[in-house]
Parts: sequence; structure tokens; C-alpha cells
Amino acid sequence: MNDDQTAAGPAENLGEPAIKVLMMPRDTNVHGTIFGGVLLSHIDQAGAVHARRMGLDRVVTVAMDAVEFKLPVFVGDTVSFYGETARIGRTSITVLIDVWARRFTPERERVHVTTAEIVFVHVDEDRKPIGIVRGSAASSEFD
Amino acid sequence: MNDDQTAAGPAENLGEPAIKVLMMPRDTNVHGTIFGGVLLSHIDQAGAVHARRMGLDRVVTVAMDAVEFKLPVFVGDTVSFYGETARIGRTSITVLIDVWARRFTPERERVHVTTAEIVFVHVDEDRKPIGIVRGSAASSEFD
Amino acid sequence: MNDDQTAAGPAENLGEPAIKVLMMPRDTNVHGTIFGGVLLSHIDQAGAVHARRMGLDRVVTVAMDAVEFKLPVFVGDTVSFYGETARIGRTSITVLIDVWARRFTPERERVHVTTAEIVFVHVDEDRKPIGIVRGSAASSEFD
Amino acid sequence: MNDDQTAAGPAENLGEPAIKVLMMPRDTNVHGTIFGGVLLSHIDQAGAVHARRMGLDRVVTVAMDAVEFKLPVFVGDTVSFYGETARIGRTSITVLIDVWARRFTPERERVHVTTAEIVFVHVDEDRKPIGIVRGSAASSEFD
Amino acid sequence: MNDDQTAAGPAENLGEPAIKVLMMPRDTNVHGTIFGGVLLSHIDQAGAVHARRMGLDRVVTVAMDAVEFKLPVFVGDTVSFYGETARIGRTSITVLIDVWARRFTPERERVHVTTAEIVFVHVDEDRKPIGIVRGSAASSEFD
Amino acid sequence: MNDDQTAAGPAENLGEPAIKVLMMPRDTNVHGTIFGGVLLSHIDQAGAVHARRMGLDRVVTVAMDAVEFKLPVFVGDTVSFYGETARIGRTSITVLIDVWARRFTPERERVHVTTAEIVFVHVDEDRKPIGIVRGSAASSEFD
Repeated sequence: MNDDQTAAGPAENLGEPAIKVLMMPRDTNVHGTIFGGVLLSHIDQAGAVHARRMGLDRVVTVAMDAVEFKLPVFVGDTVSFYGETARIGRTSITVLIDVWARRFTPERERVHVTTAEIVFVHVDEDRKPIGIVRGSAASSEFD
Repeated sequence: MNDDQTAAGPAENLGEPAIKVLMMPRDTNVHGTIFGGVLLSHIDQAGAVHARRMGLDRVVTVAMDAVEFKLPVFVGDTVSFYGETARIGRTSITVLIDVWARRFTPERERVHVTTAEIVFVHVDEDRKPIGIVRGSAASSEFD
Repeated sequence: MNDDQTAAGPAENLGEPAIKVLMMPRDTNVHGTIFGGVLLSHIDQAGAVHARRMGLDRVVTVAMDAVEFKLPVFVGDTVSFYGETARIGRTSITVLIDVWARRFTPERERVHVTTAEIVFVHVDEDRKPIGIVRGSAASSEFD
Repeated sequence: MNDDQTAAGPAENLGEPAIKVLMMPRDTNVHGTIFGGVLLSHIDQAGAVHARRMGLDRVVTVAMDAVEFKLPVFVGDTVSFYGETARIGRTSITVLIDVWARRFTPERERVHVTTAEIVFVHVDEDRKPIGIVRGSAASSEFD
Repeated sequence: MNDDQTAAGPAENLGEPAIKVLMMPRDTNVHGTIFGGVLLSHIDQAGAVHARRMGLDRVVTVAMDAVEFKLPVFVGDTVSFYGETARIGRTSITVLIDVWARRFTPERERVHVTTAEIVFVHVDEDRKPIGIVRGSAASSEFD
Repeated sequence: MNDDQTAAGPAENLGEPAIKVLMMPRDTNVHGTIFGGVLLSHIDQAGAVHARRMGLDRVVTVAMDAVEFKLPVFVGDTVSFYGETARIGRTSITVLIDVWARRFTPERERVHVTTAEIVFVHVDEDRKPIGIVRGSAASSEFD
């Protein structure tokens, strides 16, 4: 598990990330590393972007399952958030967000930070849950 | 359950919140409600504040357990994040964050948004886990 | 005066703060301490939150009375802003905001930063001043 | 007083502003106008910029005198903050900040928003007050 | 060229800046200097402010011509962005933005950072280009 | 030209983006569309990320060549910034940043926003230009 965390290879297969960001000084906590809330916030954004790819227009975050941060993230890291559909329910979609950081070190190693599971409910304009039509995911193959 | 969500009473017993914030237009998502990531970010901050109250100086977020958002949060809501110690391990502390929103409606009703469980590891300056001395929590009773 | 600034006791009586925030690196000025404008901005927010507690829906900041910063605030401090009604006029409310910082030092001492007086006018949707009905403050006792 | 508030003329004499900013949607409060705290924050910044012009290197905000907001500020307004030295004490400087908004209306009228008085103490690296040498203000005449 | 970059004099003739900002720690990149994107962002804002001065209500950024950063900008610098009309086309306006930084050093020297050329198209509410009436620039002489 | 702007195909070949972001309400200008400066800021960030991929550690933005915005960007769009090396000089690297927006419309069409050319100089810790060793680009093939 350690080996493939630092190789460029495995992440290649994840496709284009849902979002990908450069960590800046304004994202730090009092200890100078990246504030955990910044990552949780990006995980939520990445999940919403993935849900759109699957053809859903309006979604509401209803749950985030157990997420474990294996490694810290530093200023200067470029962090990619890859989405994958775990389950599609009647009105909800569960998305896995895989988070990889490219270190800003001479080796530019890539490390696995976490995999989060986040659940969104598909809603109408009045925030009432509405059904997800299978096959509506017109665009799961593109970026 | 619905009753005590809107009553002012039950939250009284939670003590002073770890943090408490007013939701502003800059915190909204594309649908005009508060972006879920903003709440997750504040939950992480509240957990770190609670860990300090318990006497820990330097903590790292290692996990957030299943968190379920029962109700949305809106611009103008004042949101309180209350912390409570769930467990203290050898080098980690598990904190429950109870999130209540005071609506900015004529009734000013108070609603329960979520209860999150978040785990922090106590670390030294090199980010190595270090033990938590029981009784070091000198200040659990203050703000 | 020095004594009660560092004791946990006196602030207990202030009730729940209007807002309470953790100071982050992004809030610093060029010297590395918390930028004064950040505190003034939170004082204004806290005053608006207090005015809502008093039953007012739409208020406009019209004046901030002399505010004196007795002590600086640092990254890592948790700062509480407590509101109290000083005066209610025909269309305005004067709010006192008491600002206390909990230092992120081994002693976790609590210090009094400032007491600010801020005046809001109660307005309608067209920003015309409207009267404040005494006794409309339905909720002064809650958070 | 009303007349010279909307004329371009009088402000001409104020010289270059200490700072000047365009108000953006992210600066709004829940009612859609500019959040008062944003203006207070810019007033503090403008005062610090003025103190530097007067030759002071490190200053700490110690007080803001009564400031009255005569008119609201809107998204799209360009707001200028002009500084003027009111008094120089042994270790402190009192700065007047004159705030003018250029409306983003067809008439582009210019209105006076407030004049704030803000006091800074001149400090060394340990935040101890140090004397202000008269005549050290080498650059009061430039931008 | 070097001489007039550090003198206070030449910039005097540029009139009041379109915008003028103090650089804060939150504007830094991973190396601790001001992130180039922050400057580009302010150049765009300054251009829009200048277009308004020229009487245009709604403009869209369509191009930024070659901009060369001659010197870096640091935390604590006060940066002025001066606008000048380069060309007025049928539906577009080309604005020159001259960027000067006042260093926060004992000498408070003023340095020329860059001159950018930015093109805006004048549009209606549906974002369709509309003609620019010569002479509509009612207010090119004010702030 | 219109055809390949809306097809998913062509962008497939661009590899993983340097950065990719979701546009939020806080990124809007006074007209409600995405503020041009936000895009310029991301282009600069994307260029720096690309330079790192090419093995450069510390770079300074020295120039942005003519960039033309062909289409506006809206709140809810997901915007990808792809990097490509245009030229490597003795101490500088010129990067092309290709910007594509995925609309948040039922069709989820992808549109080409701009291609920017940005020049970075490779510097040491004292910000002195240093040579770029060909072949040092150890990682141009990874994300």
C-alpha cells in the first residue's frame, strides 16, 4: 500500500479529477499546515461536481461517511480530488472522493491523503427530494 | 425529536459553543444556500478549539466519522458549534460537535443541523503522536 | 481590573456570545498579529446578531462609539464577542460588545480585549427607519 | 452639507487616498448592501497606511473614536479612504480617515460616507511603545 | 528609467488611482511574496473602475495584452493602479493600467511594477456589445 | 471553431489539468458573472503548477502575453486550466494555459474560454535568475 501511494502510476487510472487545487498560505492553520476544514470543504465541492457529471442538477449534501486523513497536506502541495459513483439510490447518490497530494518537494512524490464517502440528495427548486432517472447520467465519461 | 429541535431549551445545557458564526452571502453555493463545505470546515475548527479546552496544544485532524446533515443552513442563520469529549485514547481525542442554527426568521427558531464526530491526534512539533496525560484537561469547565 | 481579566469567572456571566471565532493565519497583518480590521468587522457582526436576538429584523450600522483595544489578539486565540443592550431609542438600538480572547498558551488565560458600543437603526426594506416596538424583543433570553 | 457631498469638487483637495477599493458581491451582508464590518476593516487599513506615510514603521491600533455612517455603501461603489494626521502624541498618532463612495449609478455621484478617527501606537518589535520623532515624517507629501 | 521609478514625483501626475490596496499575508504565494494572480486580479478591477469613469456602465473583460512584471511585490507594500484610456473603439475601450508599489522599507521608495493593457467590451444586460457614444464620458476628470 | 468548443473530445487529449475549480457566488462581479480577475488569478496559479511539473522549484511570474476571453464564465461552471510548455529559455519557461469551462446547464456543454501564455523565470532563494537544466523535467508526464 505504501508503494503505490508514492508512484505516479496508480492515480493515472482515476481519470480527470473533479477539482484540483494548489494549497496557499491563506489555507493554513495555526501550526502552518493545511487546515483540515479546507480539505473537507474541497471534498464536498468535488462531490457536487461529480454528481453533476452524473446528470444531476441540484443536490444537497446530506451525509459524509467516515473519512480518515492518512497524511497531512502542506502549503505548496497540489491536491487532486477524484470522484467515483459508489451507489445510486432512489433520490440519492453516494460519491467516493479520492484525495491525492502532489508534494512540492524535489521528488514531487504523490501521496494518498484520504478517501471520503459523501451522500447527496437530488432535489427540486423547493428542496424536495426527487427521483434519479437511471441513464440520465449522460456524461459520466467526460471530465 | 421535532419539538426539542425548535425549542430554545435543550441547547441551553450545551454550555458555551466552541465557535459560533453568522452565515454570510460569501458562504453560499450556486443554489443560494450555505455550501456544505463551509459547515464541515467550521466543524473541524470547533473540534480543534474543544481539544484545546481539554488541555491539548497541537492536534491533527485524523478522521471525521459519519456526519448527517438533517437540515440546510441559510444566509443570515447564526450557527453554534458545541463540543463534547466522546473518548480520550492514548494519543487521540474524539470530539462530538453538535451544530445548531438559529434561523433569521420572525420566529427565530433554533434547529439541530447535525452532530459530527471528529478524531484528533495529539502531536509534538515534528507531528509525532504523543500521549495524552489524563487530568491535563485543566480547563474543560471554562468557555 | 487585571485580576478579573485573566480569570475564567467573570465572563461566565456574560451568557452565550453573539459570535465566537478562531483566529487564523489569513487574519494577520504584516506584523503577524491579528489585523485590527478583522476585530472591528467581527464587532459589527456581533452587534447585528445581538439586534436580531432583540427581535429586530433589518438593521443598519450607523455608528460605532469610541472603542479602545487594550490588548492585541494573536493567531490561535479564540475570541468571543458578547452583546448587551445599552439603550433602545425610537428607531435605534445601542449595543455593547464585550470582546474576550482565550489565549492559545499553556495557561489558556482569558483576557479582555475591548468593549465597543455600536448603534444600529431599525429599517424597512427601503432602508427607511422604522419604530422599535418595546416588548418585541421576544428572545433576549436565548443564545 | 448635502450639496458638497455629491459634487466631485471637494474631494479633489484630499490628495491621493490611503486606499481605494471596489465593492464586490463577496462584501455584502444578508440584506445585499455592504457589510459595515468591511468598511471598518478598510478604515483600519487606511489608517495604518497613513501612519506609514508619516514615517512610522510598526503601529498597533489602540482606539477608534466615534464613527458615524451617514450613508450606506452598495456593491459596485468605488470607495476612497483619505487619511489626515489629527494629532501626534509622544508615542501615538491620531489619524482622520475620510470615506467617500463613488456610486455606480448613471450620475456617478460621489457621497460622503463617514469620517473616522483612529489612534495608533508606535511600537518596537516587542510591541513596546516607542517615541515618535518629530520630523521623521519624511514622506507626508507623497501618495 | 531606474531613476524615475523610485522618485515620488512622476506618479504625482497620474491623478488619483483607480484602486489602491495594501498587500496582506493572505495574498502571498508559497514563497512568501505576493502571488502574481492577486496583481492580475487587481489590474482587471482597476480597468473596470476606469471604464466606469469614462461613462460605461456594463463592461466585460475580453483581452489583456502583454503585461510584464518588472519587480516583485511584497507583503506590506501599498500598490496603486492608475488607469488611462488608450483607445476607444466602436464597442470597446482599451485601458492602460500603470502599477506602482510603495515599499514598506525605511526609504518608502516607490517602484514601477508593470503597465498592463486591458480591453473591455461595452455590453447591454444580455451581454450583447453596444456602441460607445463619444462624449458620454462625462466624468473622466473626477477621482 | 464552434464545433470543437462544445465537444468533449478535444479536451480529452490535454491530459490532467494543472488546476480545476468550481466557480462560486463569492467569485462574481457586480453583474453576477465571474469576475475576470478570478480567472487571471487561476491562470497564474496553473502556470506555476505546470512549471513545477517541469521540475522547476521556485519561479516568478514575469509576463503574461495577450490573453483573449472568448466567452464569459458563470457561477456553477467547473473550469479546467491545462498547461503546456511553449518554450524553455536559459532561465525562463513559457507556459500555455488552455482554459475550458464545463457549463452547469442541462447539456453540460464544454466551451473554450481562452488560451493564455505566461512566462516564469526560474530563481534561487534570493530571487536571482538561475539556469534551467534541460532534462531536469523529471515529471512532465504525470498529473
